[in-house]
Amino acid sequence: MESTGKKERIVIIGAGFGGLTLAKHVDKSRYEVVIVDRRNYHSFPPLFYQVASSGLEPANIAFPIRRELRARRMRDARYHYGKVTEIDMKAREVATQYERIPFDKLVIAAGTTNNFFGIEGLDEHVYTMKTVPEAVRARNAILGRLERGSLERDPEKRRALLTFVVVGGGPAGVEVAGALGEMKRYIVPREYPGIDRDEVRVILVEGTDKLLGTMTAASGRDAETALGELMVDIYLKRTVKSVADGVVTFAGGTTLEAETVVWTAGVTGVPFHLTGTEVQAGRGGRFVVDEYNRVEGLEGVYAIGDIAMHADERYPRGCPQVAQPAIQQARTLACNLNSGNFTRPFSYNDKGSMATIGRNRAVVDMGKTHFSGFPAWLLWMAVHLMSLMGMRNRVMVFFNWCLNYFNFGSPLRVLMRPSRLPLPSFRDE
Amino acid sequence: MESTGKKERIVIIGAGFGGLTLAKHVDKSRYEVVIVDRRNYHSFPPLFYQVASSGLEPANIAFPIRRELRARRMRDARYHYGKVTEIDMKAREVATQYERIPFDKLVIAAGTTNNFFGIEGLDEHVYTMKTVPEAVRARNAILGRLERGSLERDPEKRRALLTFVVVGGGPAGVEVAGALGEMKRYIVPREYPGIDRDEVRVILVEGTDKLLGTMTAASGRDAETALGELMVDIYLKRTVKSVADGVVTFAGGTTLEAETVVWTAGVTGVPFHLTGTEVQAGRGGRFVVDEYNRVEGLEGVYAIGDIAMHADERYPRGCPQVAQPAIQQARTLACNLNSGNFTRPFSYNDKGSMATIGRNRAVVDMGKTHFSGFPAWLLWMAVHLMSLMGMRNRVMVFFNWCLNYFNFGSPLRVLMRPSRLPLPSFRDE
Repeated sequence: MESTGKKERIVIIGAGFGGLTLAKHVDKSRYEVVIVDRRNYHSFPPLFYQVASSGLEPANIAFPIRRELRARRMRDARYHYGKVTEIDMKAREVATQYERIPFDKLVIAAGTTNNFFGIEGLDEHVYTMKTVPEAVRARNAILGRLERGSLERDPEKRRALLTFVVVGGGPAGVEVAGALGEMKRYIVPREYPGIDRDEVRVILVEGTDKLLGTMTAASGRDAETALGELMVDIYLKRTVKSVADGVVTFAGGTTLEAETVVWTAGVTGVPFHLTGTEVQAGRGGRFVVDEYNRVEGLEGVYAIGDIAMHADERYPRGCPQVAQPAIQQARTLACNLNSGNFTRPFSYNDKGSMATIGRNRAVVDMGKTHFSGFPAWLLWMAVHLMSLMGMRNRVMVFFNWCLNYFNFGSPLRVLMRPSRLPLPSFRDE
Repeated sequence: MESTGKKERIVIIGAGFGGLTLAKHVDKSRYEVVIVDRRNYHSFPPLFYQVASSGLEPANIAFPIRRELRARRMRDARYHYGKVTEIDMKAREVATQYERIPFDKLVIAAGTTNNFFGIEGLDEHVYTMKTVPEAVRARNAILGRLERGSLERDPEKRRALLTFVVVGGGPAGVEVAGALGEMKRYIVPREYPGIDRDEVRVILVEGTDKLLGTMTAASGRDAETALGELMVDIYLKRTVKSVADGVVTFAGGTTLEAETVVWTAGVTGVPFHLTGTEVQAGRGGRFVVDEYNRVEGLEGVYAIGDIAMHADERYPRGCPQVAQPAIQQARTLACNLNSGNFTRPFSYNDKGSMATIGRNRAVVDMGKTHFSGFPAWLLWMAVHLMSLMGMRNRVMVFFNWCLNYFNFGSPLRVLMRPSRLPLPSFRDE
């Protein structure tokens, strides 16, 4: 791709909340904006767990980037399909498998991926939830195990097939476990006559002594209660050492037979290969930035969202890795880029945090206020609907939620394995 | 699986229109009904092409079998997940990869799969449309080629990337080509600023001298006109000899560079391995049946739908392989099974046939009446909505169609490749 030579070109890596918000607010009469993403859609991670539990369809929470660029304020931004394979600081180019894109300014907004903490082979033996296809894969596994379990007559194999382990007691883990608990409590008795409900085990494993460690203690306790009502077993202070061939081994040596292990225990920044510089991502795969989201040591390079890390007094380990800081950082950075002088430092306005458990419960922390149960769930619903991109998606999700609510869930239990046909020719795809 | 020994057990292979209709109408106080299907959902083939062209979501046209079995008249039928690997006529058992299921009566209702007419390696180089995952694979290919094409600067490669060939001028081929034509005419100019509309070529290839050979000549002509308006090139009297590495070779030797070839040129019955008998499927993979859908030479074995073949004066090559004969045969067979004496022969009541081209055109033949254009399209919509299973699916599809209509299509252009992570352990899955 050649530079037009007129405007400065900003290349944005990643079309998540941070990248798209930035593209929207950057002054397109001053900058040429190019968004690069390996996927042609923006997606909505807070609801991935509902894809895994068959409550929503993948497309409900995925929005084509090109469609978004048709919006009035986005029309002059361009989208390029491709996975970034190198950031060349000497040539000031971003390389993908298809092309090299020169930049004047670069914004890294690629977010995070799974962190397996160096446990050997773990990625091959667990199900993860960091992208929509990963959530679909988890869904297929869950539905497949139920089908297999209902046919299996060897009691030991049957037990392993019907044991679902969720590792990680953060919001993602609590939400997946809640959805699985709902499945055990309400769906299995109704739709799987070959399975006794008590044969199904849902186990949530957390390394510390409480759930939802980033939220208030009250939220953690309320989550425990709600999960208990959904027949989820909670193992606190347990660390997973390995998962292989249907066996989970904990630190200390105890084991558990389970065919399905969902891993939500950690994230790390999407890895990048930077050349022509000493600077690389730091701890947790995050780029260290100053209060203007400038990557330290790299001129004209910025990082926002989950992959950026700025320690201050309030957040000594950086902002929480959720949507709000990414959106707020993108707005501030756009302001600074538009004005040309970096005078507005970023300051995170924490609007609170929430997690949902099952069909009609949630926990909410807002400042010092905590509440839970049905009102929290209504607020959770409203906030998530508003954050979804596109009116169609909002309507579809709302419609699905209403049906799920009155129906007790999940008419979408379609186990749709990808086609196994080999992929036609094209060389380097 | 053990027989309860009380009622006679009917095993139905396949949960398509034939299999589910039969399960619904068979008298469950007289028979124990077991449905076996390798997929846990019923799907709706007439709309697969809309999945491929991003107009509908996979789940809109896929309906979980277990959910369907919750309906009042189905409650006593059981579903077993598994792919039939053998029909053992000696033991009178159906074997899947998971179990052996004894039967008293067996109904083969497994439908058809792609027919490549023995062309070597074709399955690896073309995209097919006989299942939902195949349609999703085609969608990913189409969207991927557009993205790649918009980045490619080598003119020859670019041309191959932006050439879409559809083989087969039947309803499926005409419908896919129409959807691709619509994409060329309306979507590309709006969403792919890097592609000139005229660079995109959509080519429909048919071996005979007309489109829609099973319909009236007027329908074929109207389809040609409508496709022409959608900028589709139609190659008649051309037969594909091979497809490999982005090159289509026709009988006669001419070639065409195209990265994307959609194959709709033929079907054959899903293959089965019968043991303990000389009887096997006949021409086109279909089981020859009498006018009561009894498979000739096999006691207590029946075939219905696309995989059954009964030649009579009206249909010397058997009924058309569409939904209506399957549904009607299932009803007649249920009657005969319920009464116990086979006194009601099957007679096909042909309600007509139709095909749609693009966003608001269709052709309809009803007896000797032919009409086309917008009224035909309204009828096409109504008939297909009514045939969909489940109110949620009907509402979703209708909602999508309305949005697509006013929006000129396809806010669902999500290229969602399956997760490439290796699949966790379980032995024989």
